[in-house]
Amino acid sequence: MTLILGRKDVEQLLTMELTLEAVEAAFLEHGRGTTLVPERIALFLEEYHAVIGVMPAYIERLKAAGVKLICHYEDNPKKHNLPASAGLVVYHDPATGMPLAIMDCAYITRMRTGAATGVSVKYLARADAQVLGIVGAGAQASCQIAAISRVRDLKRVKAFDIDSAATARLLQEIANLELETEAVDSPREACVEVDILVTCTPARIPFIQGEWIQEGLHIAAVGADMPHKSELFPGVYARADKWVTDLINQALVTGEIAGAIAEGAMSEGTLYATLGEIVAGQKPGREDDAEITIFKSTGLAIEDVATAKKVYELASERGVGVELSITP
Amino acid sequence: MTLILGRKDVEQLLTMELTLEAVEAAFLEHGRGTTLVPERIALFLEEYHAVIGVMPAYIERLKAAGVKLICHYEDNPKKHNLPASAGLVVYHDPATGMPLAIMDCAYITRMRTGAATGVSVKYLARADAQVLGIVGAGAQASCQIAAISRVRDLKRVKAFDIDSAATARLLQEIANLELETEAVDSPREACVEVDILVTCTPARIPFIQGEWIQEGLHIAAVGADMPHKSELFPGVYARADKWVTDLINQALVTGEIAGAIAEGAMSEGTLYATLGEIVAGQKPGREDDAEITIFKSTGLAIEDVATAKKVYELASERGVGVELSITP
Repeated sequence: MTLILGRKDVEQLLTMELTLEAVEAAFLEHGRGTTLVPERIALFLEEYHAVIGVMPAYIERLKAAGVKLICHYEDNPKKHNLPASAGLVVYHDPATGMPLAIMDCAYITRMRTGAATGVSVKYLARADAQVLGIVGAGAQASCQIAAISRVRDLKRVKAFDIDSAATARLLQEIANLELETEAVDSPREACVEVDILVTCTPARIPFIQGEWIQEGLHIAAVGADMPHKSELFPGVYARADKWVTDLINQALVTGEIAGAIAEGAMSEGTLYATLGEIVAGQKPGREDDAEITIFKSTGLAIEDVATAKKVYELASERGVGVELSITP
Repeated sequence: MTLILGRKDVEQLLTMELTLEAVEAAFLEHGRGTTLVPERIALFLEEYHAVIGVMPAYIERLKAAGVKLICHYEDNPKKHNLPASAGLVVYHDPATGMPLAIMDCAYITRMRTGAATGVSVKYLARADAQVLGIVGAGAQASCQIAAISRVRDLKRVKAFDIDSAATARLLQEIANLELETEAVDSPREACVEVDILVTCTPARIPFIQGEWIQEGLHIAAVGADMPHKSELFPGVYARADKWVTDLINQALVTGEIAGAIAEGAMSEGTLYATLGEIVAGQKPGREDDAEITIFKSTGLAIEDVATAKKVYELASERGVGVELSITP
């Protein structure tokens, strides 16, 4: 039997606490080399300005296997009144291959992307970090803040978006976190006098400048996950003491990293570590308060599959979802 | 809404006639260069002697997009009383990315694999071919014969399997085709005095010898679709006038082709054409009765997605399946 879980089922079940646990465990196994996580396949459907992403993964010690299918259709909201991103996670029993569950992937994607940032903050931000700057107040933003607020004693958030209504909505959404919040008027203001910076925009050209970056900052660069996307100028990477990513081959093809390498601001060889290596203790995270650290997040299927496993277990326990016989 | 179709739903809907139509159309578009079909991703789960295959495809002119997820677990029948192969096709609306349908892939896989052989026979076997030899009487065999019998005026089938009970079951299964049938005692007997030869075994070492192959034969080599699999000795390829495949990069990594190249029996450069190029008329198929032709089938996701589209359309028309709201 295969358990089918719709968007609302997943939203009802999954918490940030569980997601952080799943995503940190996934990175630990990644660092230990006990995962299979090939680079995602992307089908570019030019005619529809769309990308279909196919992301399989296997985490041996978690006994979790699955595939995320995620479609990015930038014209969907205007043309079809549908979200720009949608798709499924198919969660397999690794012992038999049978699909145990098929679930909506939208909330899992937002939560695990936030959690990956949270894990990077845990290991790379200053222990006393209190102020977060966030640029981009779209769908990703609230989960980023929620994750960070679980791993650091966050007091204050400065948020910027080119759409000020989006910023207002975000600050509303995170009201439950009881943080001091401020909508700022420029990306620069979100970058200065903060301890952690998150960029989660769909930008195609860089806009975060190297000279804005202050000592001790940890940056989670989340938005630029594809060849046509870029948020940080090469000068930001030139200033980093440690740049870290989730999967090096995926990072190298993002517009942001490819651009920074092309401009000579860094090279593949200057990668400090993968996040998995840091979580597994193979390389230290932050070593002093002055270091500038960057986590370039591109999104790994191990994050989705580890999170989907939690969702599946919770749903089974609580009897949520519809069970159908699809395969034998 | 997403339509969920179980194994029996698919079996009830899909016919070989429709599958041949879908698969030939898919190869036509492949030859025209209007498909996206990256090499499949395979996750090898060594601990379970298993492979999870992930196969996305997009066929622009057919307006069909989707992903097949197929798990091969060779220990499943003995250990879990489950089939060795199982999985799903997720069929997406290419205009919005939404998953229109999720369906069992077992029957689709068998039918489209048979149909791909059928398309190769249509273009590459002698027009007067009447006798088929088939080695391997497993799950694939009956669909191979059904497809061939729709494109040639087949009179007789000679079948061999190391398990004679499997051969008997196969001949029973194809009784409806009203062919003269014979269970033969060796692979060699299935190869000589036949016009078409199909090999569809799970063999890991070659067993079909070059000297068995007679002038004018068309071979569909279906079994060896992975690095560890091989059916035809290099000497068979050495005798071929035209060797054709579905996707060159997938063929090159099969044990069979890699072995034939390593032994100098052929090279990547001696590939005559892809099946798509032949269907699209870019290269002629068979040009005289004496030619020995080989179609090395590895299985393309375009075959699955084109077939899944037919299944989805039929199911919608006839109200088969369960509709659920998974994504918005």
